[in-house]
Amino acid sequence: MSINADKKIKVGIIGATGYAGQEVARLIYSHPEAEVIWYGSRNYVDQPYSAVYGNMKDLADEACKDDDLSALAEQADVIFTATPQGYLAGVLTEEILSKAKVIDLSADYRLKDVSVYEKWYKIEHKSPNFLPEAVYGLCEVNREDVKKARLVANPGCFTTCSIESLYPLVKEHAIDVSTIIVDAKSGTSGAGRGAKVQNLFCEVNESIKAYGVASHRHTPEIEEQLGYAYYAGDAEALSRPGGTPILINFTPHLVPMNRGILATCYATLADGVDAAKIAEIYKTYYEREPFIRLLGEGGTPETRWVEGSNFLDIGFVVDPRTNRVIVMGALDNMVKGAAGQAVQNMNLMFGLEETTGLLFPPVFP
Amino acid sequence: MSINADKKIKVGIIGATGYAGQEVARLIYSHPEAEVIWYGSRNYVDQPYSAVYGNMKDLADEACKDDDLSALAEQADVIFTATPQGYLAGVLTEEILSKAKVIDLSADYRLKDVSVYEKWYKIEHKSPNFLPEAVYGLCEVNREDVKKARLVANPGCFTTCSIESLYPLVKEHAIDVSTIIVDAKSGTSGAGRGAKVQNLFCEVNESIKAYGVASHRHTPEIEEQLGYAYYAGDAEALSRPGGTPILINFTPHLVPMNRGILATCYATLADGVDAAKIAEIYKTYYEREPFIRLLGEGGTPETRWVEGSNFLDIGFVVDPRTNRVIVMGALDNMVKGAAGQAVQNMNLMFGLEETTGLLFPPVFP
Amino acid sequence: MSINADKKIKVGIIGATGYAGQEVARLIYSHPEAEVIWYGSRNYVDQPYSAVYGNMKDLADEACKDDDLSALAEQADVIFTATPQGYLAGVLTEEILSKAKVIDLSADYRLKDVSVYEKWYKIEHKSPNFLPEAVYGLCEVNREDVKKARLVANPGCFTTCSIESLYPLVKEHAIDVSTIIVDAKSGTSGAGRGAKVQNLFCEVNESIKAYGVASHRHTPEIEEQLGYAYYAGDAEALSRPGGTPILINFTPHLVPMNRGILATCYATLADGVDAAKIAEIYKTYYEREPFIRLLGEGGTPETRWVEGSNFLDIGFVVDPRTNRVIVMGALDNMVKGAAGQAVQNMNLMFGLEETTGLLFPPVFP
Amino acid sequence: MSINADKKIKVGIIGATGYAGQEVARLIYSHPEAEVIWYGSRNYVDQPYSAVYGNMKDLADEACKDDDLSALAEQADVIFTATPQGYLAGVLTEEILSKAKVIDLSADYRLKDVSVYEKWYKIEHKSPNFLPEAVYGLCEVNREDVKKARLVANPGCFTTCSIESLYPLVKEHAIDVSTIIVDAKSGTSGAGRGAKVQNLFCEVNESIKAYGVASHRHTPEIEEQLGYAYYAGDAEALSRPGGTPILINFTPHLVPMNRGILATCYATLADGVDAAKIAEIYKTYYEREPFIRLLGEGGTPETRWVEGSNFLDIGFVVDPRTNRVIVMGALDNMVKGAAGQAVQNMNLMFGLEETTGLLFPPVFP
Repeated sequence: MSINADKKIKVGIIGATGYAGQEVARLIYSHPEAEVIWYGSRNYVDQPYSAVYGNMKDLADEACKDDDLSALAEQADVIFTATPQGYLAGVLTEEILSKAKVIDLSADYRLKDVSVYEKWYKIEHKSPNFLPEAVYGLCEVNREDVKKARLVANPGCFTTCSIESLYPLVKEHAIDVSTIIVDAKSGTSGAGRGAKVQNLFCEVNESIKAYGVASHRHTPEIEEQLGYAYYAGDAEALSRPGGTPILINFTPHLVPMNRGILATCYATLADGVDAAKIAEIYKTYYEREPFIRLLGEGGTPETRWVEGSNFLDIGFVVDPRTNRVIVMGALDNMVKGAAGQAVQNMNLMFGLEETTGLLFPPVFP
Repeated sequence: MSINADKKIKVGIIGATGYAGQEVARLIYSHPEAEVIWYGSRNYVDQPYSAVYGNMKDLADEACKDDDLSALAEQADVIFTATPQGYLAGVLTEEILSKAKVIDLSADYRLKDVSVYEKWYKIEHKSPNFLPEAVYGLCEVNREDVKKARLVANPGCFTTCSIESLYPLVKEHAIDVSTIIVDAKSGTSGAGRGAKVQNLFCEVNESIKAYGVASHRHTPEIEEQLGYAYYAGDAEALSRPGGTPILINFTPHLVPMNRGILATCYATLADGVDAAKIAEIYKTYYEREPFIRLLGEGGTPETRWVEGSNFLDIGFVVDPRTNRVIVMGALDNMVKGAAGQAVQNMNLMFGLEETTGLLFPPVFP
Repeated sequence: MSINADKKIKVGIIGATGYAGQEVARLIYSHPEAEVIWYGSRNYVDQPYSAVYGNMKDLADEACKDDDLSALAEQADVIFTATPQGYLAGVLTEEILSKAKVIDLSADYRLKDVSVYEKWYKIEHKSPNFLPEAVYGLCEVNREDVKKARLVANPGCFTTCSIESLYPLVKEHAIDVSTIIVDAKSGTSGAGRGAKVQNLFCEVNESIKAYGVASHRHTPEIEEQLGYAYYAGDAEALSRPGGTPILINFTPHLVPMNRGILATCYATLADGVDAAKIAEIYKTYYEREPFIRLLGEGGTPETRWVEGSNFLDIGFVVDPRTNRVIVMGALDNMVKGAAGQAVQNMNLMFGLEETTGLLFPPVFP
Repeated sequence: MSINADKKIKVGIIGATGYAGQEVARLIYSHPEAEVIWYGSRNYVDQPYSAVYGNMKDLADEACKDDDLSALAEQADVIFTATPQGYLAGVLTEEILSKAKVIDLSADYRLKDVSVYEKWYKIEHKSPNFLPEAVYGLCEVNREDVKKARLVANPGCFTTCSIESLYPLVKEHAIDVSTIIVDAKSGTSGAGRGAKVQNLFCEVNESIKAYGVASHRHTPEIEEQLGYAYYAGDAEALSRPGGTPILINFTPHLVPMNRGILATCYATLADGVDAAKIAEIYKTYYEREPFIRLLGEGGTPETRWVEGSNFLDIGFVVDPRTNRVIVMGALDNMVKGAAGQAVQNMNLMFGLEETTGLLFPPVFP
């Protein structure tokens, strides 16, 4: 599987000076088959990358370049775009895609329905023509499609955690999908590196709050993917009588910690489903997944146990009093929720072992 | 309303060296009509109180006394017990109650049904005879009964937040009570001052987890009180056809911060109820309450805004897509969730202005 | 001492929407003899104060006003200016001072020597004419002068902690002043509420760093005041042979916590001075001070024990191996290091009991 | 350099369930030439290692074994002891050393002078006979000796940071060694995983304090090593006239963060030494060191930039006003301050490339 040094995958990062872009840079640094050749930035052009991120001192002292995607496509094998919503949709071309694979960490190609995108993101989509070929890069679900993709829409942090926690139960119709509630909690790195008062240390520390209640943009992404699971990919399902879309409540909360997402998911059990059945379903779907760790019934994932790693931990409790299951999923929003999954997608796209460069233990404490 | 200095209410605290007991001590220090005369402790007898809590240096240098409730009753006008479950039930006597009022911060007299207590707390109740007279000290709900009480069961931190957030909607039948889910988040002081590995700084910091899923002891307390609200105090309601008890899902989470509770509550709206109706109900019930602050529709409470104070902030969002209301309540678990409400109860029991010594602003940042 | 309600001191705050200004507002809210009549702000004019600081909801819902010092002077008895360096010096007039007392939380009138100010702050001083009358508002040191002042220069947070920790030893020539090193650590609220990347939660959390090494602006302030102590107010001392100014090393560090300053001070003992002598000196100077708590030899102050209060805790250790004394002082940078001391100054200036509205216990945990 | 899989170095860890032991386990997991074969524990025998440290789930599910060093020596190539002071000295034998190399993370063999050990640690040293052969495993200083060692005394966290920050200046006599003051700040993982009230989240969070002032056990370790540097290994130096031992002030502080040490070191410059000279000295000593990163004059290391890595960052400022240099060093106490350096020592002892398994970027944020 080893590629010799001059044949390393050439990686370009647009948006390398945001938190997610930096995490891609960090992971690629330790990846045996890839190397970063372009640290793209809007605000720090010509400054050493390690002056922006002191952790990379002596490891990445190259100057930041601009965000010229076309120029980059001439040199790179793969481009990671960790950019604001709408950016990639505005500049992506067939020519670029013909030269380099693209893994987009923004939401531009995650939703297949343009009108849903435009309604929730409140911006016009500039290149809906690429939507059909874009593969939603949830590796455990869409592995085979990712392998063949030129353009991968890397899922959001909340969505990876929420979808993968519920996916087997929805697909197996083990829960009443009209009762799904996802109460999610995120570390603050998910808010990005922009200089905003609300994200200052003293504003976040010693506090917890909900935000984007009933309006967060990850909601339709979760709903769409759970819908695919529920209707087993039957594209016509929703247009037939009784084919109702899945609608959920999704409530994100901001937690005073750097990394980590915990999704606490509630749903009423379908008739005849009990804890043993739930456990069996998870085993069937995930037992052989290298990055999903099953804690079983009574298992309560904690973000400290996944921090810095590409793992998603899942546990659940069945409450016979209310006939609900509470599923909990925990991951590191910067890794499995962003850069780690992006590298996992890269591995798949380039025919590498899926775990290459990603199978390191979480850092504790 | 002022009582002259020699007539200050004499306060004894049993369990004064736990976090909640210390908060009672702190609040009484600044209370114009009361003074602590007994810092009761099991582990620190004869040590200066300020050696256990350095914040009280020069303010409370008296030696800690033991936890002899009978001896204390001879000297005190009111006794606060911030003790482990079962302690007070094991030592309380009619004689003690005839001499001093008792405000119990443990769960011993919160649940009227002994069998429910014994099932969830897994200990025998040693003095169920006092249950009928014990008043559940949720001041905003049971104000008039508290005024006449000798024995007050001070509500739990999660329960105060959860019950008061939902109470008006349940009482007005504005939500479907079979759909209630409370996803709660708490600062770490709620875990107490016991030396446990799981509460070490490095174990709690940079992590979030759920615990006591579907089994936390505050669940039946919330259910019982919401049941009273729903059936409007009709004691026979549950024994009549269709009289089902309220069952909820309650999931507490541990957050890396010292203080604060946020309860995110979900429920399906009853027919014909909309956001305007919800807002009106809250106004009717709480507009004149000195310690409840209504943030209205779209308002998302944050624990930083209540820290150190006796306020409960409530906001809500109606999601027309799912026909659910999401109600959020935030309070400081040490104040309105424990010691502050206990002092509020004391004020009511002694005929003082309810807000005496409690109307100070939250401390931020 | 009580003033009846219509005779409360009318307080105006310029810069009320910064952290220090907000702390003044919070303290005045609970002050029995004063009330805020003007929340001055540059960025939030016409917005409710409680929309900027949610903790003040229902307590201060008035709209913010502008920063017109002259208009304010017509209405206020005292003006607190919590403004950027140079602001007050640029707008202060004799007319304003003739109408209202001014307590300045900026550095504009702290340094008597204009050239030192201009060198360290790198701005021109616009009204050096007020420097002679301005009183350096270190209450424990300059109490009598403060009582008579119209204009008080409220000391900085690091400086209050550093100067008061060392003052008695310097005044008594108990240490070699050429060996003084102050290694100080501060919570992040000291960095203010400006939206800067370096103060984002994820940048501050889980890290510690020194900053302003050998160049921090509080250095000359500490040196000047310790010089007054050393030369016992002999204004000519420095111009005589052997009259060398005191030069220290002062190194501030940023700590991932909201509040608190700890100053660890090192100095070589003067001949014949031992731990007993040090203890005796502190007792002589501070034993009767209401806001200074002496922990004695071996006492190590912790910021948690002063948080939210106006106390300064001081402890020390003598190391016979190196013949040095290590003095440690801890205070809350928002209270004794800023707003609390400002209110203490107000109390002195208006003939109130010095502790009025300030003698509440620290909040823990 | 690669060793084939069945020839991986067999690693045993005694004290694997403490924080430092766990960090060894984590690092060895990702080490290409070594594998853990024994997770030794006193309290968790027969429990899966991943039940003690959830981050290792699916990665190290083996049951913990006991702490039988002799049995382990039969199977292991190298033994890491992350055990309480005095443990290894009590059980180490020539037979064990003849079978397996030992890297001791405790202090048992760090101090060459038994009387100094016994005075500062207040326990009897049970096997001083091994002291002569034990090599002090500060890799950058004692690299060649480490390569030949059977028994390595892995330096303490504070000491690695302090010694390496000052070593070149002391060796070159660029500073007055009688003026050295080290003011150090540490994350809380350095306090270990013992269940103590003082290390609970609510006690550490939002606070900073000094501890072990003038009495911390790392003091003589720093002094001894700096003495070797100063006298250039001249063992007789101290017994000759004028040969005074180096005595410093070392003050550790506890910081509310998980990982990281920052040492702020003060010393008076020797005659004729300026900033350029200091910079040159550091370059000479450290420019080619893979794990030391020089930030140069004005550089202020921050623990966030080294977190999770084996790097030590060093910067300095010269203050011409006081003629002192302030040197700052930052490292991760769990990695370069403990387990990382231990693995670096292992690499040296087994003839591997020194950086094997250790050259990964710090994790930020």
